[in-house]
Amino acid sequence: MREVAIIGVGETKFGELWERSFRDLGIEAGFKAMEDAGIAGDDIDAMFVGNMSADRLIDQEHIAPLIADYSGFGERNLPSVRVEAANASGGIALSQAYMSVASGVHDVVVVGGAEKMMDVGEESAAEILASTADQEWEAVFGATLGSLYAMMARRHMNDFGTTKEQLASVAVKNHLNGSMNPDAQFQRAIKIEMALNAPMVADPLGVFDCAPLSDGAAAVILCPWEDAKKYTDSPVKILSCGQAGDYMALHDRPSLTRMDATIEASKKAYKYAGIGPNDVQLAEVHDAFSISEIMAIEDLGFFEKGKGGKATEDGETSLNSKISINTSGGLKAKGNPMGATGVGQAVEMTLQLRGEAGDRQVKDAEKGLIHNVGGTGSTCIVHILGRGF
Amino acid sequence: MREVAIIGVGETKFGELWERSFRDLGIEAGFKAMEDAGIAGDDIDAMFVGNMSADRLIDQEHIAPLIADYSGFGERNLPSVRVEAANASGGIALSQAYMSVASGVHDVVVVGGAEKMMDVGEESAAEILASTADQEWEAVFGATLGSLYAMMARRHMNDFGTTKEQLASVAVKNHLNGSMNPDAQFQRAIKIEMALNAPMVADPLGVFDCAPLSDGAAAVILCPWEDAKKYTDSPVKILSCGQAGDYMALHDRPSLTRMDATIEASKKAYKYAGIGPNDVQLAEVHDAFSISEIMAIEDLGFFEKGKGGKATEDGETSLNSKISINTSGGLKAKGNPMGATGVGQAVEMTLQLRGEAGDRQVKDAEKGLIHNVGGTGSTCIVHILGRGF
Repeated sequence: MREVAIIGVGETKFGELWERSFRDLGIEAGFKAMEDAGIAGDDIDAMFVGNMSADRLIDQEHIAPLIADYSGFGERNLPSVRVEAANASGGIALSQAYMSVASGVHDVVVVGGAEKMMDVGEESAAEILASTADQEWEAVFGATLGSLYAMMARRHMNDFGTTKEQLASVAVKNHLNGSMNPDAQFQRAIKIEMALNAPMVADPLGVFDCAPLSDGAAAVILCPWEDAKKYTDSPVKILSCGQAGDYMALHDRPSLTRMDATIEASKKAYKYAGIGPNDVQLAEVHDAFSISEIMAIEDLGFFEKGKGGKATEDGETSLNSKISINTSGGLKAKGNPMGATGVGQAVEMTLQLRGEAGDRQVKDAEKGLIHNVGGTGSTCIVHILGRGF
Repeated sequence: MREVAIIGVGETKFGELWERSFRDLGIEAGFKAMEDAGIAGDDIDAMFVGNMSADRLIDQEHIAPLIADYSGFGERNLPSVRVEAANASGGIALSQAYMSVASGVHDVVVVGGAEKMMDVGEESAAEILASTADQEWEAVFGATLGSLYAMMARRHMNDFGTTKEQLASVAVKNHLNGSMNPDAQFQRAIKIEMALNAPMVADPLGVFDCAPLSDGAAAVILCPWEDAKKYTDSPVKILSCGQAGDYMALHDRPSLTRMDATIEASKKAYKYAGIGPNDVQLAEVHDAFSISEIMAIEDLGFFEKGKGGKATEDGETSLNSKISINTSGGLKAKGNPMGATGVGQAVEMTLQLRGEAGDRQVKDAEKGLIHNVGGTGSTCIVHILGRGF
């Protein structure tokens, strides 16, 4: 297995992009990444695309060759692969692309993630999202992702004394970080009272406990580490990748307050990278809901089980504290365009490790972890990235 | 890169399986393949699933962990990946799984393909299939896959003198082969008059020029070649894999009478395997329409461009003739459950190379090619398999 570098990144602004099409977004992100890497289309050997539900959202199946075609690769008959793992589609696309370069199958590949959620027609996005959980045993009875995560939050509060204020402190931190990210959907800091007094979505989760629906796209370019110098002075290395799954339905799992897929995926990633949770200075974790971030920072080993809420409230996950969590603003403030989310995490981490993250730069960032979850935790993918040279 | 073996195969019957659920089908195919390989669930390291559109067909996203869960892998947190490439989803799942074993990332993996098309609700399956072509430039104007392939057929007839009788001879051959395949949707031989007099779908393509809609699932188990002896006396080797893409929309392509994705994908596969088209005794090609098979046997190099129709009419593609094409019955007679189709091709080829194909056995089958196409040819994946030991 060869070592693999990220040599270019690009993303669109995330948000309600009414005037943009799915194709537009995919192309913008891809071209920005190619420009960043200083490569031409002829250098690219393959494309991997993460997308959750273009067929339901924009009536288009088979979007990998579509994006390849609209990016100008039709004439070259470029191979392209779409993967889908609900909200983890982007992270899984990255892992498949990483494997293809590490194995020597391809040299230079582009990984794209894209989702257009605003244009949805007859179905609501909430219905579509609910079907990333177990359709026959959860969604069909009316369970939405919000209500399933609300049950996890309730149980976490019951077992560990986690408070609504602690949940709200996730949103406050992520909005502050998002205010420093020009690509973020929400670029305004909020006060904790705003989160606490927000309309309820699924008790105990209010509007500010839930990531928004978003349009957006992100792309990264990978190549073998040994070739990275040809393209850039500041490559980022993919140190490892770990994936795990879990039961689809919450009621089958041994615990509601941890995600075993996160625990197992991160164990693999730490082991392969030869490091532990204390060796990363920052992480982009999957905060689809405030409780998701609290569980994630526990399951990834940054904090003891049950202490994630307190740690967040105490500022231990704020920018340039003990560990900087979701410097991009996270899914909550940067936005959550499903298939693009995991690839966008890799964009943020690359900018941080290059020292190009502007006002939200983590000092001396050397190693970072990105964590992408599908459904209510039946897919988890973790990558660990490191500063190059 | 390690060499990779297929050590177990299984599939459900293909057809209108009204009494079966998607989950049922996936599990049946997977368990049959595991039983065939003589392995237990604990031996499996990962799962790859090919599926076109479970989200629109059965309202379920995120089907990879769903099938893993319902196969008993929830407790083990098995990683699973769904890929989608329209009707080539199964073939692309096989290629991703092959890469994961060849690279050393995983040892034993199961590749599943499944589709449940009969239960579709508000949308028609034809609408869903049309969105595997370019939605904004083709489907939205009313083009279905049938009408797009009809244009290819018309042009092929114009340029090369291909006749309706030659198109019909594809169906006659494939129905005869299907009559010897207990898993086939249609197990009845037909006379050419039946095909020629069938109701028109899109001129010049009648009902017998079009593969049916089907439910079904298929699975194969892969492991490193060096470990195959532990599991089986008759492993089949994956000699190579080639993938290519193309423009999404027909009007962008330089020619309507060839598929460049097939040409490029097969070139890669032949090169890597170190063989040519004359070295395979049989092939499962993607006959979604009769014209697809005629173009495929030309583009794969079995016959000169323009001679595919005549060759079929002359019986050169019949069982145990010059080259045995679609011994399973092909998509036309075996059936076409989208995500399962490409994996089912690997099942048929494995049975043939093991000498276990019963009445439809190709004599002295040593090497075979499988060819899976998405949309109107914007994705193509080719694998070449060989008899083991």
